[in-house]
Amino acid sequence: MTITRRGLMLVLSSPSGAGKTTLSRRLLDADPNIVLSVSTTTRPKRPNEKDGVDYHFVTAEKFRASVAAGEFLEHAIVFDHHYGTPKNPVMEALAKGHDVLFDIDWQGTQQLKEKVREDIVSIFVLPPSHAELERRLRERAQDPEAVVAKRMAKAASEISHWPEYDYVIVNDDIDPAHKKIVSILSAERLKRARQVGLSEFVRELIDGR
Amino acid sequence: MTITRRGLMLVLSSPSGAGKTTLSRRLLDADPNIVLSVSTTTRPKRPNEKDGVDYHFVTAEKFRASVAAGEFLEHAIVFDHHYGTPKNPVMEALAKGHDVLFDIDWQGTQQLKEKVREDIVSIFVLPPSHAELERRLRERAQDPEAVVAKRMAKAASEISHWPEYDYVIVNDDIDPAHKKIVSILSAERLKRARQVGLSEFVRELIDGR
Repeated sequence: MTITRRGLMLVLSSPSGAGKTTLSRRLLDADPNIVLSVSTTTRPKRPNEKDGVDYHFVTAEKFRASVAAGEFLEHAIVFDHHYGTPKNPVMEALAKGHDVLFDIDWQGTQQLKEKVREDIVSIFVLPPSHAELERRLRERAQDPEAVVAKRMAKAASEISHWPEYDYVIVNDDIDPAHKKIVSILSAERLKRARQVGLSEFVRELIDGR
Repeated sequence: MTITRRGLMLVLSSPSGAGKTTLSRRLLDADPNIVLSVSTTTRPKRPNEKDGVDYHFVTAEKFRASVAAGEFLEHAIVFDHHYGTPKNPVMEALAKGHDVLFDIDWQGTQQLKEKVREDIVSIFVLPPSHAELERRLRERAQDPEAVVAKRMAKAASEISHWPEYDYVIVNDDIDPAHKKIVSILSAERLKRARQVGLSEFVRELIDGR
């Protein structure tokens, strides 16, 4: 007998350069039950990005219309660009029994928590050291030096929000970091409060029918 | 850099016949950082049990003296016998950075929670079905039929306490059940609140020294 379980909302946040995007993809590849919440943004598409996969790329005008229509679960401004989480796809995925992964920053996490507190599991990913963080931020060849400096300052500011998260992991190496996230997800699925079918299961266990 | 972590107290409870003892041993074998809290009891030693390993076997008189001296973290009566958790070994293990495993029932768990709430992670282990529970209870050949019947009734009563636990797992098969406990332990070790060295780690991360 399978015990019915409520879907959870897994929030992964980190400063740029902590490897969050790689970890998100790894998790989605490893677990078909997880669905990614694709954010909407007004920032320009990078050459390697796909509309509708990495983000829904929209104009500022379209974004404001969606905000006004209440179509976002959360939205925020980062680096002068708007980012938002469309509400409907999330609700549909949860209703189908999926867990939903959110690759959002601390502002989005705060807003999400206000709306759907109990179903959120939040993980903050930290880089292993200052030197390594700097090295990773410089690796994005398309960014000019001024952008790297701005990112570094932003990273420090983002890192300061780690105390608002349920879990903190250090991404020293991608494999162990991935395993840590998988453990957190497995454990959270086993939380008594999430297994909504337990009462029924226990009744059968005791009555024997 | 290693992030200092506070030790946790892992409580494993279940009705007799759910496989808790096997799961405890497996966990202790798999993870050298975990130390078992050996309970004290007044019940007779079974042929396969070792004093000081499975339990500290004592007289009722000695048990009462220990209760009076405040030497137990918790104590309770089960099947007319006394069971208690000696305090000192637990505190010493936690101070050394170990996690401590408690193989105790719901009464012990309730008492433990009152004393050290925040460090406790509690898991309730359920048998997979009524038929399987009955089969497992009958397998202990040394128990007469009356004891089996008493155990079955007691199991139903114990199972009714599942809502008091953080996690609930079904022990359908020992390997997946073991993996579930390992996941819970891994995740709980990654909880922000348990990683007491995080502030220091983040300070170095941001300052770069």
